[in-house]
Amino acid sequence: MTAADDKTLCVFGLGSMGFGIATSLVKAGCRTAGFDLDKAREADLQSQGGLTLARDEALAVADIVIIVVVNAAQTEALLFGEGGISGHMKPGAVVISCATVPPEFARSCETRLDALGLLYLDAPISGGSVKAAQGALTMMTSGSQAAYTASQPALDAMATKVFRLGDQAGPGSAVKIVNQMLAGIHIAAAAEAITFGISQGIAPASTVEVISECAGSSWMFENRGPHIADGDYTPHSAVEIFVKDLGIVSDVARTARFSSPLTAAALQQFLAAAGMGYGREDDAAVAKVYAKNAGLKLPGDSG
Amino acid sequence: MTAADDKTLCVFGLGSMGFGIATSLVKAGCRTAGFDLDKAREADLQSQGGLTLARDEALAVADIVIIVVVNAAQTEALLFGEGGISGHMKPGAVVISCATVPPEFARSCETRLDALGLLYLDAPISGGSVKAAQGALTMMTSGSQAAYTASQPALDAMATKVFRLGDQAGPGSAVKIVNQMLAGIHIAAAAEAITFGISQGIAPASTVEVISECAGSSWMFENRGPHIADGDYTPHSAVEIFVKDLGIVSDVARTARFSSPLTAAALQQFLAAAGMGYGREDDAAVAKVYAKNAGLKLPGDSG
Repeated sequence: MTAADDKTLCVFGLGSMGFGIATSLVKAGCRTAGFDLDKAREADLQSQGGLTLARDEALAVADIVIIVVVNAAQTEALLFGEGGISGHMKPGAVVISCATVPPEFARSCETRLDALGLLYLDAPISGGSVKAAQGALTMMTSGSQAAYTASQPALDAMATKVFRLGDQAGPGSAVKIVNQMLAGIHIAAAAEAITFGISQGIAPASTVEVISECAGSSWMFENRGPHIADGDYTPHSAVEIFVKDLGIVSDVARTARFSSPLTAAALQQFLAAAGMGYGREDDAAVAKVYAKNAGLKLPGDSG
Repeated sequence: MTAADDKTLCVFGLGSMGFGIATSLVKAGCRTAGFDLDKAREADLQSQGGLTLARDEALAVADIVIIVVVNAAQTEALLFGEGGISGHMKPGAVVISCATVPPEFARSCETRLDALGLLYLDAPISGGSVKAAQGALTMMTSGSQAAYTASQPALDAMATKVFRLGDQAGPGSAVKIVNQMLAGIHIAAAAEAITFGISQGIAPASTVEVISECAGSSWMFENRGPHIADGDYTPHSAVEIFVKDLGIVSDVARTARFSSPLTAAALQQFLAAAGMGYGREDDAAVAKVYAKNAGLKLPGDSG
């Protein structure tokens, strides 16, 4: 934290993850300014100790810029679009890019920022908004030694586990999409298994109880299975997130001529869930596709 | 164990699971006879304290018969085929059936044995040969109270966790195939993810290390991932087991008009692995299908 005392940080994107990260930086003693299209989020952060600087004023002094937006398109627009921040940063500053993006996009950002005298850390995050606010994220990172050195005060405050996966951008994003690929498949598999159990007369709560102690379990089964058993689709992470992330995996796999049939099957189930109108529900709502396709009722189903 | 002192038990099928179960029963002080097509296995068990009784001699006094064969066809032949054991058991004895079978088959066995004055416990097992030999299996069971009462000495000696899922045969087998469904999908998913990682320049050992600590992990990923990273396909559980078990799930799902796209995709990958000649290798060899389909090399690949 002492290393952070003389650094200024900017966080772009104050959604559930970005706001959590920004507050964890403030709590760690970092001078942190936060920016979002929603000005109320900026005011919230300022009320919790964030700096009250205008965007370009903050960028002119920032040593570290953390980008916590939704995808590659938003990252691209923020960095390089009209009035993009890369034109306003001070030489030698580092961009820590947290969105889930294709590895090739991460490499391209690194190259373009390098041409501007700026550093780039490929740094997708995992752990959810609660861990973000606790400074307890897991990060899958890669980049130059200079980028790591410049990023260190932020990494110390944001994460309890920082995997270093390579000396240039790309591997961090690659391992992140591998994680999302498995997470998406496992959520769809949990939904497939629990609804299949219903077709055989097994209550979802029984399936969740037994399988959680058996070799068929997964982190996602144990986490999302209870959502299905309880009929609670309050969005912790939404169906649309996996439409996006399995879409990225599918695109990258197609480019690499890599056949990925489970990813493809899982993506179709999330797409069907979104198409049925459940895109903003919890990702466990993919179970509703299985139930409708089989004429079954899930816990919480009315009518 | 005292309850077992005056009981005689027979174990049919002395493969890696059945032999382990039989020895755990002997160690628990149960009077246990074991039978197998391979007479050397029978002799091995006798040398470790098993009873030296002929089959029909043992059946005439056995209170508990445990069947640990491969599938429903073998269970059917053993119980009801020519010279089948159901015709030689004493009234009131119980059959504990451990193979992974369709729930409907389990119900049919219960009904047919009931007509002969015999009890049936639907009792698939999970945990592998090491836990079998330790008497530390997990069992997914269902059956009548009379079947449970008659089975108790064996359950006490075989398992550390006995899930009771219903008061007739069927639910035990249903939950077991749900477990196998997830296990098979998760192994194929681990193979898909690790080889996809290779296509993006990520070494299998890195993928295994990082994902094991992230939300993309599963019991199977953590167990089988290292097999792929080490290039070690020594069969702990073979590809053919999941050709069989995902085949059962697919058949049961089709009968129930239950659409199961991830199960279907995973089954095709195990079928391709078997078709390529890897049926008797460790189930993690499904990774070889992904690698060949993408022109990639796995750890341990020569040439």
